[in-house]
Amino acid sequence: MDKDIKECLDQAIWCARSLFERNKVSGSSANLSLKIGDTIYITASGSCFGNLDYDSFVPVGIPGCTGRPSKEFPLHEILYKKDPSIKAVLHTHSINSVIWSMIYEGPQEDCIPSYTPYLRMKLGTVGLVPYAKPGSEELFSNFRACVNLSDGFILKNHGPVVGGKDIMDAFYILEELEESARIAMELIRLKKDI
Amino acid sequence: MDKDIKECLDQAIWCARSLFERNKVSGSSANLSLKIGDTIYITASGSCFGNLDYDSFVPVGIPGCTGRPSKEFPLHEILYKKDPSIKAVLHTHSINSVIWSMIYEGPQEDCIPSYTPYLRMKLGTVGLVPYAKPGSEELFSNFRACVNLSDGFILKNHGPVVGGKDIMDAFYILEELEESARIAMELIRLKKDI
Amino acid sequence: MDKDIKECLDQAIWCARSLFERNKVSGSSANLSLKIGDTIYITASGSCFGNLDYDSFVPVGIPGCTGRPSKEFPLHEILYKKDPSIKAVLHTHSINSVIWSMIYEGPQEDCIPSYTPYLRMKLGTVGLVPYAKPGSEELFSNFRACVNLSDGFILKNHGPVVGGKDIMDAFYILEELEESARIAMELIRLKKDI
Amino acid sequence: MDKDIKECLDQAIWCARSLFERNKVSGSSANLSLKIGDTIYITASGSCFGNLDYDSFVPVGIPGCTGRPSKEFPLHEILYKKDPSIKAVLHTHSINSVIWSMIYEGPQEDCIPSYTPYLRMKLGTVGLVPYAKPGSEELFSNFRACVNLSDGFILKNHGPVVGGKDIMDAFYILEELEESARIAMELIRLKKDI
Repeated sequence: MDKDIKECLDQAIWCARSLFERNKVSGSSANLSLKIGDTIYITASGSCFGNLDYDSFVPVGIPGCTGRPSKEFPLHEILYKKDPSIKAVLHTHSINSVIWSMIYEGPQEDCIPSYTPYLRMKLGTVGLVPYAKPGSEELFSNFRACVNLSDGFILKNHGPVVGGKDIMDAFYILEELEESARIAMELIRLKKDI
Repeated sequence: MDKDIKECLDQAIWCARSLFERNKVSGSSANLSLKIGDTIYITASGSCFGNLDYDSFVPVGIPGCTGRPSKEFPLHEILYKKDPSIKAVLHTHSINSVIWSMIYEGPQEDCIPSYTPYLRMKLGTVGLVPYAKPGSEELFSNFRACVNLSDGFILKNHGPVVGGKDIMDAFYILEELEESARIAMELIRLKKDI
Repeated sequence: MDKDIKECLDQAIWCARSLFERNKVSGSSANLSLKIGDTIYITASGSCFGNLDYDSFVPVGIPGCTGRPSKEFPLHEILYKKDPSIKAVLHTHSINSVIWSMIYEGPQEDCIPSYTPYLRMKLGTVGLVPYAKPGSEELFSNFRACVNLSDGFILKNHGPVVGGKDIMDAFYILEELEESARIAMELIRLKKDI
Repeated sequence: MDKDIKECLDQAIWCARSLFERNKVSGSSANLSLKIGDTIYITASGSCFGNLDYDSFVPVGIPGCTGRPSKEFPLHEILYKKDPSIKAVLHTHSINSVIWSMIYEGPQEDCIPSYTPYLRMKLGTVGLVPYAKPGSEELFSNFRACVNLSDGFILKNHGPVVGGKDIMDAFYILEELEESARIAMELIRLKKDI
């Protein structure tokens, strides 16, 4: 394997494992992809962020490649098409973002309050994508309709989707998004209580 | 030891340790089993998911085998008997499922609300099994009475019991169950507050 | 070093690190001891459960031994004196037990409700010891006054103290105590909300 | 590299990683520095506490040194100037401290209630520094105005800044601060409920 590709996959494996071990991803629910040259490497359907290895990645469109890409591949594709500077996409079911998507009721293109300045600085706005069945054409269509209105996204009752200039960048953005969702949620509880 | 058995145990050890390290299991409270051929390998009574090794597994019914199987073995047996495609069973005291079992008051055969679609997709329904003393004949009898009414289970004030086609499958199901219980619990709090 | 002592310390180091890594102990706030023969090995003052090694243990009363024992040593001594079958003592500031000790208002000799049967099965009752300054003679005196009334203890606004027949036993008891305190706390919140 | 410097950096790397793995730091949001002799070694801008290595540290003011120091360097400098016994500074976005800074409304020079005695014993008082944009001259100026009024600090809507006689000391202080903020927050919820 090409040394540069190996290095990118090593970083992706580290990010995935770290998210899993710190309870920001669980089970087999997340997927990520890297765009290296013209090829998109995406985690295989059903893989677990806790134990990815090189074989967990499917190079989509490479002739003779085996392995079934995550069924959420179109979400990744849509982000790569939107912005050529995006070289990595991360999709998880991180629980604070998921719960926030269930209770939030304000403007859909900017759904995370800026209680700290960091999410805005690192990413920008986060759009809330209307619910449709995971992996369904309707979900991809909903995502396409939202993709130019915000910088990052939460699929309602499902989880965040973010892109970055590399996987570490996407990872830092996701971390900040999840922290921000948790702060927003905790403040609702506490403000009610004091 | 047979190479295939070793591989299965390695996976089980990984799953157990991962649940422990991420606070989904604590102390010596969980147990798991694998069905390999006609033999059921179950964790020994009092073993800790944080440091299982090959010697932690007791091959039930193998002549000359030493080690005392978990006293919850009959729960495992009941699931294997129900469905021959089940090859692994996982029982924990995962805290969100336990707390949910204490406050839930709806239909007993389907006790986890589907706020996300994943638990339904990965497992189906989760039945709530009436409380009886851990390891008691009454508990096993309660479990038998419920086992055909749902796909997975939570023993009330005690914890989840799930089967899978292999240990990774059971692990993914448990992860989803625990996430779903936590979401259900958090939403009760938040909905009251907003 | 004696092979048996080494094995005991290895187990203690594992338990300490595990508690630290899973956020049940933080900073330099916990201490533990082992009774091997007539010697008590206790963690040195200011040591951190995240990185204990053999040198972190002070064999109290061994002539020529260097290192300063934890200033909470008398708590350990009191438990060893109470019951000769106790061979390990664990004291932490585990946060759920600490918070529970601040809000609980029922009988002081049995302060953790039995929502699950496990704490009762593994340990028995948990007494709440009145607050006094950490390391003060007043605290040790309070502890002495309570030590025969319950099986395990929480020092009010401070944290749990438990003994076991070995360090794994004390560890399992502490895990169950902390889970039980968390369940008790979460139920107060949820029962109020539903 | 000098053996003493290496040892100090090793400790700092351990502390950083530990904070990250236990969810007290996330993403690339934290920074730390060490004062060794007359040189301050600070983590580079954008570095991640989960994977620091020797190259993550920038020796500020050493001619020919490459790497861009964290833009929060002036916060560190202000603490070193205040007290020559401070040899390490730690700044994080630890979530309980951050949320507490958003809801607290009492005296600004002593913003963490002493529900346990430890924070007072280990550190003293914690001042709340008025909000200004991260890395801005206004924030540094706010910090300067507060730095002599308290022993440790939380930047409002941003996170704690603490110094210690070495990195382990700063680490223990931060751990205690974060625990204390969490206790304060949980008690608000529970006191309302009981």
